Amino acid sequence: MISRNTNSIKEPRITLVGAGPGDAELITLKGIKALQTADVVLYDALVNEEILAFAPANATKVYVGKRSGDHSFSQENINKLMVDYALNYGHVVRLKGGDPFVFGRGHEELDFAAEYNIPTQVVPGISSSIGVPGLQGIPVTHRGLSESFWVVTGTTSDGKISADLYQAAKTNATIVVLMGIHKLAQIAQIFKNEGKGKLPVAVIQSGTTVNEKVVIGIADNIADLAGESGISSPALIVFGEVVSLHPKFKLVKDVYDIVAKG
Amino acid sequence: MISRNTNSIKEPRITLVGAGPGDAELITLKGIKALQTADVVLYDALVNEEILAFAPANATKVYVGKRSGDHSFSQENINKLMVDYALNYGHVVRLKGGDPFVFGRGHEELDFAAEYNIPTQVVPGISSSIGVPGLQGIPVTHRGLSESFWVVTGTTSDGKISADLYQAAKTNATIVVLMGIHKLAQIAQIFKNEGKGKLPVAVIQSGTTVNEKVVIGIADNIADLAGESGISSPALIVFGEVVSLHPKFKLVKDVYDIVAKG
Repeated sequence: MISRNTNSIKEPRITLVGAGPGDAELITLKGIKALQTADVVLYDALVNEEILAFAPANATKVYVGKRSGDHSFSQENINKLMVDYALNYGHVVRLKGGDPFVFGRGHEELDFAAEYNIPTQVVPGISSSIGVPGLQGIPVTHRGLSESFWVVTGTTSDGKISADLYQAAKTNATIVVLMGIHKLAQIAQIFKNEGKGKLPVAVIQSGTTVNEKVVIGIADNIADLAGESGISSPALIVFGEVVSLHPKFKLVKDVYDIVAKG
Repeated sequence: MISRNTNSIKEPRITLVGAGPGDAELITLKGIKALQTADVVLYDALVNEEILAFAPANATKVYVGKRSGDHSFSQENINKLMVDYALNYGHVVRLKGGDPFVFGRGHEELDFAAEYNIPTQVVPGISSSIGVPGLQGIPVTHRGLSESFWVVTGTTSDGKISADLYQAAKTNATIVVLMGIHKLAQIAQIFKNEGKGKLPVAVIQSGTTVNEKVVIGIADNIADLAGESGISSPALIVFGEVVSLHPKFKLVKDVYDIVAKG
């Protein structure tokens, strides 16, 4: 049971804000304005902490991050904290990495707030699925190479690779896999099983930040290349002919003698 | 042949900036900073003109929009204008609706600039494919309903529905169709042919702007409903169980007695 301090003067409200992929300047103006009126900010592990500076100095900033394996803050706890702070302090900004609705569980948080009749707003963010490849020179769509892109989770709620990925590997879409880096070899194998061993692949760690690292290869060798380079989470994987537009792909192509459109 | 006025003092450079889906405040801080140093802004039809106010008052602002059927500015002309302005005026901001790489032909513009050795930068934007459904209360992914989303063009370079859409209709992904509103009946038929006549569908026109209009239905009736409501371009279409989370869907469900997970 969450109760409201009746001495509280401020009206409770919650704004879900997408913080973008990493670079603090990739937050929207609307997101900044929401932060400027925040009484409390609840922020995730993948949020650049520089963004917190847009909130008033006296606003309460609470880290509720969860990373793989660290379950100190369950979704249930985050929901409760969010509502509790709203009822007792006023405007809660729930600051989430990327966009709140791309594997962000944003709708579950809105649902929970609705149970307490707390008004909510949403401010979209730049999803890493589009922005991170783009800033690496990999457009998710490109005339002649890709008429669509498909964003899939590498880790479903039960810890498995999404069944959608097996379907995705059969198509011509650009495939962006989020939260799949720990299963890279398995995921690449799905594409190899479809006869796509030569399909260009990019792995990008910590995109748009100072820790950004990129490895370019093909389905056949990407797991080895990523292993050698020590790439780790958070990272996304892009499968598709559009990866051939990356400046480093020429080198891969020369070495492995790939027929790009093969 | 594009030549440079040798009296020009400024170094030519080009920044591709994603303006976001419509609401002027959905541009990023990085996009605003790029505009603040612009000598010239080349902007598309779908860009909110309020965003031009972030550029200096004396910057040259050039509309290079093309809408369906209006070919006054071909991509080739835009490329040439962009390079010509950069060589003669300095910093060109190429302001594009949504994200520059989601059916934005952004990479073609970077390629053209590279031929003239003009340095380029990219600032991603909120893609309407994610932000517009999200602001309507439709998350592109949601636990138990969707583990992936697939963004497809309804109009390829030769004016056809992308072949990818026929594959998409067979999958469990949330399908977002951009530039498909004029072929809505045909596109809905693709889903009906897969036995998905009861699949929830949303059509959203001019998302995030004052002209926003939304129609919620199912594949079986969405073309009729959109026709009755007079929805027109620009609009996107969302097919998927996640559309059942939209507040208006309850009504649709009551009327048509849909088994949502059927």
